[in-house]
Amino acid sequence: MLHFENDYNEGVHPELLQALIETNEENLAGYGLDFYCQRASEKIKEATACPDAQVSFLAGGTQTNQVVIASLLKTYEGVLAVETGHIAVHEAGAIEFTGHKVLTLPSHEGKMKATDLASYLADFYGDGNHNHMVFPGMVYISHPTEYGTLYSKQELTDLAEICREHELPLFLDGARLGYGLAAKETDVDLETIAELTDVFYIGGTKMGALAGEAVVFTKGNMPKQFTTIVKHHGALAAKGRLFGVQFDRFFTDDLYLKIGRQAIDLAEQLKAILREKGYRFYLDSPTNQQFVIVLNDKLADLAQNVAYSFWEKYDDNHTVIRLATSWSTTQADIDGLRAVL
Amino acid sequence: MLHFENDYNEGVHPELLQALIETNEENLAGYGLDFYCQRASEKIKEATACPDAQVSFLAGGTQTNQVVIASLLKTYEGVLAVETGHIAVHEAGAIEFTGHKVLTLPSHEGKMKATDLASYLADFYGDGNHNHMVFPGMVYISHPTEYGTLYSKQELTDLAEICREHELPLFLDGARLGYGLAAKETDVDLETIAELTDVFYIGGTKMGALAGEAVVFTKGNMPKQFTTIVKHHGALAAKGRLFGVQFDRFFTDDLYLKIGRQAIDLAEQLKAILREKGYRFYLDSPTNQQFVIVLNDKLADLAQNVAYSFWEKYDDNHTVIRLATSWSTTQADIDGLRAVL
Amino acid sequence: MLHFENDYNEGVHPELLQALIETNEENLAGYGLDFYCQRASEKIKEATACPDAQVSFLAGGTQTNQVVIASLLKTYEGVLAVETGHIAVHEAGAIEFTGHKVLTLPSHEGKMKATDLASYLADFYGDGNHNHMVFPGMVYISHPTEYGTLYSKQELTDLAEICREHELPLFLDGARLGYGLAAKETDVDLETIAELTDVFYIGGTKMGALAGEAVVFTKGNMPKQFTTIVKHHGALAAKGRLFGVQFDRFFTDDLYLKIGRQAIDLAEQLKAILREKGYRFYLDSPTNQQFVIVLNDKLADLAQNVAYSFWEKYDDNHTVIRLATSWSTTQADIDGLRAVL
Amino acid sequence: MLHFENDYNEGVHPELLQALIETNEENLAGYGLDFYCQRASEKIKEATACPDAQVSFLAGGTQTNQVVIASLLKTYEGVLAVETGHIAVHEAGAIEFTGHKVLTLPSHEGKMKATDLASYLADFYGDGNHNHMVFPGMVYISHPTEYGTLYSKQELTDLAEICREHELPLFLDGARLGYGLAAKETDVDLETIAELTDVFYIGGTKMGALAGEAVVFTKGNMPKQFTTIVKHHGALAAKGRLFGVQFDRFFTDDLYLKIGRQAIDLAEQLKAILREKGYRFYLDSPTNQQFVIVLNDKLADLAQNVAYSFWEKYDDNHTVIRLATSWSTTQADIDGLRAVL
Repeated sequence: MLHFENDYNEGVHPELLQALIETNEENLAGYGLDFYCQRASEKIKEATACPDAQVSFLAGGTQTNQVVIASLLKTYEGVLAVETGHIAVHEAGAIEFTGHKVLTLPSHEGKMKATDLASYLADFYGDGNHNHMVFPGMVYISHPTEYGTLYSKQELTDLAEICREHELPLFLDGARLGYGLAAKETDVDLETIAELTDVFYIGGTKMGALAGEAVVFTKGNMPKQFTTIVKHHGALAAKGRLFGVQFDRFFTDDLYLKIGRQAIDLAEQLKAILREKGYRFYLDSPTNQQFVIVLNDKLADLAQNVAYSFWEKYDDNHTVIRLATSWSTTQADIDGLRAVL
Repeated sequence: MLHFENDYNEGVHPELLQALIETNEENLAGYGLDFYCQRASEKIKEATACPDAQVSFLAGGTQTNQVVIASLLKTYEGVLAVETGHIAVHEAGAIEFTGHKVLTLPSHEGKMKATDLASYLADFYGDGNHNHMVFPGMVYISHPTEYGTLYSKQELTDLAEICREHELPLFLDGARLGYGLAAKETDVDLETIAELTDVFYIGGTKMGALAGEAVVFTKGNMPKQFTTIVKHHGALAAKGRLFGVQFDRFFTDDLYLKIGRQAIDLAEQLKAILREKGYRFYLDSPTNQQFVIVLNDKLADLAQNVAYSFWEKYDDNHTVIRLATSWSTTQADIDGLRAVL
Repeated sequence: MLHFENDYNEGVHPELLQALIETNEENLAGYGLDFYCQRASEKIKEATACPDAQVSFLAGGTQTNQVVIASLLKTYEGVLAVETGHIAVHEAGAIEFTGHKVLTLPSHEGKMKATDLASYLADFYGDGNHNHMVFPGMVYISHPTEYGTLYSKQELTDLAEICREHELPLFLDGARLGYGLAAKETDVDLETIAELTDVFYIGGTKMGALAGEAVVFTKGNMPKQFTTIVKHHGALAAKGRLFGVQFDRFFTDDLYLKIGRQAIDLAEQLKAILREKGYRFYLDSPTNQQFVIVLNDKLADLAQNVAYSFWEKYDDNHTVIRLATSWSTTQADIDGLRAVL
Repeated sequence: MLHFENDYNEGVHPELLQALIETNEENLAGYGLDFYCQRASEKIKEATACPDAQVSFLAGGTQTNQVVIASLLKTYEGVLAVETGHIAVHEAGAIEFTGHKVLTLPSHEGKMKATDLASYLADFYGDGNHNHMVFPGMVYISHPTEYGTLYSKQELTDLAEICREHELPLFLDGARLGYGLAAKETDVDLETIAELTDVFYIGGTKMGALAGEAVVFTKGNMPKQFTTIVKHHGALAAKGRLFGVQFDRFFTDDLYLKIGRQAIDLAEQLKAILREKGYRFYLDSPTNQQFVIVLNDKLADLAQNVAYSFWEKYDDNHTVIRLATSWSTTQADIDGLRAVL
């Protein structure tokens, strides 16, 4: 079976595993106070060219979104996201669980348009008072989006400007950030993100960590007692070293970016093969996730050799499926796919 | 430095690490649906002699307590615990975060007395209605307790009977369960716990896992859609394999119990040394955590060679400290301690 | 000034006031346990021809929606409503405050279509599992809707059938129920509502009460310890008599319906006048709220003599405004309006 | 039957009723924006000699405690109260419902001692970090307390000083404030309370209002968007006039204080009679609630003529009962009691 169903079905990247093995017998402080969490934070501050950054490590994406959003919103505020945003549809109500509404804007291939945001805010603050409505308290975007698409530097700048004007923190979900940073034609790098957002996270799990996401508050704006907030969410790991050691390694010798680049190279080959074979793309994704429209009748056939993800119904006869490369995809996988198709 | 400060400052037990290494390249389903989670569940059902058990894996103790308690209580109910219970004092309000009160009973060296529970319930249901009070909805105990003490089978039976009578689920927090099961004179084994409680968890993190606790619903009583509940708590691990592989190994060839036994043997030596040297025990703990009353003036001296945990102020001149053995403590550590003291 | 801006800007209906005055010196049990709450419940059971009904009184609409929905949903469930539903937009996130998501369906002049509901549920339960999504746990509709429209008996029956099939409680928000029951051509009466819904409320505040809504659980399905649930929402009135006395009077000699009928008669006159004068209706509302599209340039003029509510922007040059009759509108008000327009 | 069971079993004070009748036909803005709410606020600012005060009206005590506390605490904070505090025992978990823990200190006849508070805070901030504990975020006291007792000005000053030092808002629950202000030997008046606390509320319901409590933020410290916060708690009354009109009247010609004085005069007579008849007091209460220890055997006898409240079990043979005067108690009630006893 050729595995392209997602980017989290294999274990841990060999170099991260090696780092875990090498540090295993060290006695290290618990709860994120260890040497490796500290050093990984320093390396991230350097990589983002953001000396004021404050870094914290959490286990997974939904947890990170939940903790960050709940820690920044006032009780009467909600978070703005596009309708297809992960927090809006695929986190089982983790945001609402903390008492906050997800306010939705239209999705443009997974992205939020600055004009939509501006007009929402103009309407909200425009006519009369809105005391009986949920106040917009921050903006959530993902990069890459849930559809693999990327914001351009200009698009991010436009969103950031509107956010700043309305004092809304801009939060970027980077569950697959490494794949975004490595995309062929992106003009968005880590420094840009650190500059334009108020908080973002650098995804680990989908980039080859066993678990772990690095939250970066970019403006010295980490909420007071953030550790206690993490704890009362049930999200404080006793062995925070698990995250520290892996992120320390991710940010040594550019490993994080290298992993991204390899997956993108293979994704580009994947796209070429699919195009060649006449497959129809649902949209043009520059990252590791590719969305293809397939005749329902062909799905069973494909499934015999290729593991893919069902994404959504396209029409009565077609289905959108996802094929993803990852840190663990090999050239042999791609060659195998070419042979099978 | 000799490390006795706690049982979570070292990495992962070598055999668990080996299992992680061996399975690392396998492609496995995410979110706890993998082969190892399934097999570990089966092994736990066997080890607890509880064929109706339903097992789920979570990352850490506070998270487990939060998810289990919130999933079992009705909105107007609280959870009963002793005043020193972990959920009552050291989880930063993780239970209240989910909307539920922790109702406290007196602590007897960390334990709940059946007579206290009975009289609380008699009072509550006794005179008039209590519509303006928080209803007791379940009972939480820890075994070993936060003070290292253990319930006897008779004590557990008494609590369980009262719970059954009032239809209150009995939940046992086994963050350090392996150390309790291995204690010299306990008459409480896994089967007993599975029989007497409605839900309990088998602690992994403090027994040598990188992270991971196995929740066991013993009576086919896992709440409906438990995976979704875990997800909306932000607690669903993408790579659930991390827990599955470790627990599969824990429950192969009795590793879990062997780890417990070794730590208990060393704890018994530790106790003997301390007794020999004239140290005063705060209470008699049969497990891996030992609580000793030390003159404040001697603390700095001790700290030069031995890492311990501050526990609590005893009086103006004395402090209670904790010395703990763990899965990673060695005979050399104990010998070192003997030499130092 | 002629007041048509809403139906809650005047005090209390004279007959309700009289009842409050007459009972004022009686010593009555607190917290809803008084004689009048009991008698009002009995009268409501009779009026709804629903002997199994369980009735409880709350202060206002948002509070009622919050308490009822939170008391019926499981923690991982959300409530389905149309996008324009009161709970979705005008309750400042009161539902999310209790941890639950409002899942939205398209609005058809304020109404939910059975076909939309059916297809949402078919999609949700259709393909694969939805463990990472919020589960639909109940259906919320309002009658009259926020746009004054009404369901037909057939439409309610269709919704109820789908709900029953999926074991989803159907909740009808009747904040303005009396105006709906009195509409000229409706085939929906109290008995029909009691039969087809699982819970609904009979609005008091907008029908002339000082405060008060009567929640009716129609199938013996009032959640256990509902009084305690109300209390922990901060919603239990010490002087529940305030609600009991008013609803007792509402349901004596058909006062509730008479109030509705008078407001509807005047609303029909209002519609005729507006139509006569060439006003354009936003939609055809058979109840006390009328929505009219007005040139922005004419608004200031109108506002000199007539108090109306801004509803929403129609286009760059037009605005939708609301004109409402109520229990306190008089023939003189209508005549005055005719003169002014 | 002579009614001394509580202070909320009769309707509304005749002068408040008169004010409601007189204003009933006025068209007034909804949601607390009406003329009477504004004027009542101004009168309260004057009566408290607190020009910076911000006033808001809510329906009842539990609701007020819940909204105020939730609006002031950060997510990781709890509220300090004595063990017998209303929020700790008799609000069905309304504080925990909002995600916050009630942290308890010993009760001294219902009062919090400044020394207890100081030592709690010293311990909390003293040794090491407390990242895993709930942070104290504000202090709640009631005046009169749940046992009818009162703080002296010195006691309030001492608490206020500690609170200021630790930047903890001090919140005073004045559900029965009028009875406290009117006590014979109190040196605490409204101005003192406004000066020493950060927020308090002036109880209406138990002083003769149909419903209504006036929250006073004394230092210009009303949380941003407080109306929206009230709304998302489900606590915003459409006809806020109900509260405005009554409080406007309460604070005209000193009615509020006069009501208090009359109830206290009668309570003093009640005490004298009870003392005379050899009844044993549970404690010395200077306000309208009196707590008496009665032989269980005598209770049924008493209950034939006198309605009282069961308070708590004293010992196996005795019960503590409460006898309360109120705004509606008359000299005839007292004379009747004298005759009966």
